Amino acid sequence: MLTDEFAQAALDQMAHADVLTPDCPSRAVLQHLTSRWGVLVMAVLATGTFRFAQLRRRIGGVSERMLAQTLKQLEADGLVLRTDHGEVPPHVDYTLTPLGNEAARHLVALVGWVETHMAEIGAAQQAYSRLRPTADRNGRSSV
Amino acid sequence: MLTDEFAQAALDQMAHADVLTPDCPSRAVLQHLTSRWGVLVMAVLATGTFRFAQLRRRIGGVSERMLAQTLKQLEADGLVLRTDHGEVPPHVDYTLTPLGNEAARHLVALVGWVETHMAEIGAAQQAYSRLRPTADRNGRSSV
Repeated sequence: MLTDEFAQAALDQMAHADVLTPDCPSRAVLQHLTSRWGVLVMAVLATGTFRFAQLRRRIGGVSERMLAQTLKQLEADGLVLRTDHGEVPPHVDYTLTPLGNEAARHLVALVGWVETHMAEIGAAQQAYSRLRPTADRNGRSSV
Repeated sequence: MLTDEFAQAALDQMAHADVLTPDCPSRAVLQHLTSRWGVLVMAVLATGTFRFAQLRRRIGGVSERMLAQTLKQLEADGLVLRTDHGEVPPHVDYTLTPLGNEAARHLVALVGWVETHMAEIGAAQQAYSRLRPTADRNGRSSV
């Protein structure tokens, strides 16, 4: 089944992957980066420094509470830097740390891949719907 | 704030990113790929072909229901191929499609990045805890 170099590299990578173990700290970090809003926050911060309200406007649909929680998780992981400029009125902004910048490269690449392949994915989705019109798209039918 | 080529590339990438729009289909696909179990399913399938029970053993902590739902979403997006060999007893296995293989490269790279940077992330987490010992790690304190 290993037909190319990528599969071999993935095999090496995943053979002892800690993220496959439920309680490993790396799984929590991976979840912060790939959470519903984590991916988008990281990808937007890859483009510059933003205030909270700017980020919220940029990321359609995120609530104040979820954005605050997402930023705090990423800040605690050392991926996002929160800077309070100590001004009145308050001026707080968010930017990626060098570590966060490295992680963001992978997320920006992933977002880019999804966006440039939506035509193929959309065609696949339509083919799937035609072939399995009664399938529960939430996956609750039998395995 | 654009200090390097990556920031400029990210800016170009994210300037018109459909994933930033709540109802865009690309956001749903991104969520399938980056869901709690989607990342791990894709990264494990990058290493070969697996039966359902094999996948479940490999990915610690996943329930039968969540694994079935995750596989079905990825199958509907054209990223995973489910093959029923029509044998008795049933023999069904899962593998990445060529499209899924492309997406998986980004996820394997992300998983690899997290695993190789856990020391730095762990140090950042400890520093954050020391500096903000009373902060609510779930992010519910003030913005």
